[in-house]
Amino acid sequence: MLELYHAGLTTCSKKVRLCLAEKGLDYRSHYLDLRKFEHHRPEYLAINPNGVVPALVHDGEPILESMLINEYIDAVFPNPPLRPADPLALARMRLWTKLADNYGLAAVVPNTWAFYQPVLARLSADEYEKMIAQVPTDERREQWRKAADNSFSAHDHEKARASAKRIVEKIETGVGDGPWLMGQAYTLADIDLLPYVDRIALYFPDILGPDADTPRTLAWLERMRERPAVKESYTPSADAPASVVPVAGK
Amino acid sequence: MLELYHAGLTTCSKKVRLCLAEKGLDYRSHYLDLRKFEHHRPEYLAINPNGVVPALVHDGEPILESMLINEYIDAVFPNPPLRPADPLALARMRLWTKLADNYGLAAVVPNTWAFYQPVLARLSADEYEKMIAQVPTDERREQWRKAADNSFSAHDHEKARASAKRIVEKIETGVGDGPWLMGQAYTLADIDLLPYVDRIALYFPDILGPDADTPRTLAWLERMRERPAVKESYTPSADAPASVVPVAGK
Repeated sequence: MLELYHAGLTTCSKKVRLCLAEKGLDYRSHYLDLRKFEHHRPEYLAINPNGVVPALVHDGEPILESMLINEYIDAVFPNPPLRPADPLALARMRLWTKLADNYGLAAVVPNTWAFYQPVLARLSADEYEKMIAQVPTDERREQWRKAADNSFSAHDHEKARASAKRIVEKIETGVGDGPWLMGQAYTLADIDLLPYVDRIALYFPDILGPDADTPRTLAWLERMRERPAVKESYTPSADAPASVVPVAGK
Repeated sequence: MLELYHAGLTTCSKKVRLCLAEKGLDYRSHYLDLRKFEHHRPEYLAINPNGVVPALVHDGEPILESMLINEYIDAVFPNPPLRPADPLALARMRLWTKLADNYGLAAVVPNTWAFYQPVLARLSADEYEKMIAQVPTDERREQWRKAADNSFSAHDHEKARASAKRIVEKIETGVGDGPWLMGQAYTLADIDLLPYVDRIALYFPDILGPDADTPRTLAWLERMRERPAVKESYTPSADAPASVVPVAGK
């Protein structure tokens, strides 16, 4: 039995939801509303002590971290395969998934979290302190404070732009004629990078857009958006309600 | 034919050198002296455009990123196995290697790079600017500037301490009776975390040491230091000369 704890249309959740959709796998969906801080509740922290989404639970066993969840899904449900069998190609694919893991969130965090500011502004001082106290890691607590105070620094924004540029430059020079990042094979490289690239196009049109010199990345993005599984997992639904962040690509 | 481009006793290089030593694999060693900025030279950038060590070259094909190199080595040279075969155990092992990858360098960078300050101070203004111009990424350029100016910020040092704490806490609560991080099986989890934990003990004795409440982590560290392959790869040798950073565990 597969269960997914996720936050619908948020980036890391879409990464895993798309992987499951490409495999055509059924799962029990547990939608957590980040605006209600449901991912900080004790019952979820028992599954993921880091208090971040998503988490996959397979036959009662939690698997954490979207990059690792997708590798697990492909190992246990190998059809259709989403990783190359050859070790060298696999190491190259993982350079892409690691790029997504290392630079994806950094690229989108200041802009994405700004959308939470109005949500946080509606909390009373007591509610706010109670929420902060439930955040299980210092790292995330700092991010919530910055979102509440709208205090992401110039350095945070520079780091976001540098991360976005790094991702786009790697794709622009690496995708070739594609159609996918690993060439003919559609893999976790494409799946893991899409949520961030999709938002980079929304937040930083000067880095990725018709006026930026990024034709190959844009063409890849369009090919991705045409995939039925992408349409299914990137569009609001009962399972993944519209979030505070606008849906990209519209 | 295996070739390793590495910087001897530096953290990420030790990660891969230990993996190769545990496998008993022979390789052609290319030692790069970071104090001479040999990792920024065009001939190395042709292998790793990011200008960081190590890089493995197998039959002419470069494999990058220490975490991914070690997975590659274990896939291609499976004896003795350093990863569990079961997908769930493998996902758990990767939580450890990802912990090393995400927090290891952050934990040690400000202290380690401070040792480079005297090296940089000996450069003329021209030599310094020439060196900086050769650094291929903004991220690394910023680090070299901070090392030269001795300008790692209070925030950098706080982040280092928080990263060190996170690693030690995860090991302290996760290693159980061991002997290894995955229990009876010695894996890449142990290999990938060791270089950082070894330095955390050196830099932050209040976080990891006899006066910190970390008996399980210290016991694991001692078990690791007793392994012949660790002694071989963590001790200065012709292949891995003493660096600017003191050898830990002495």
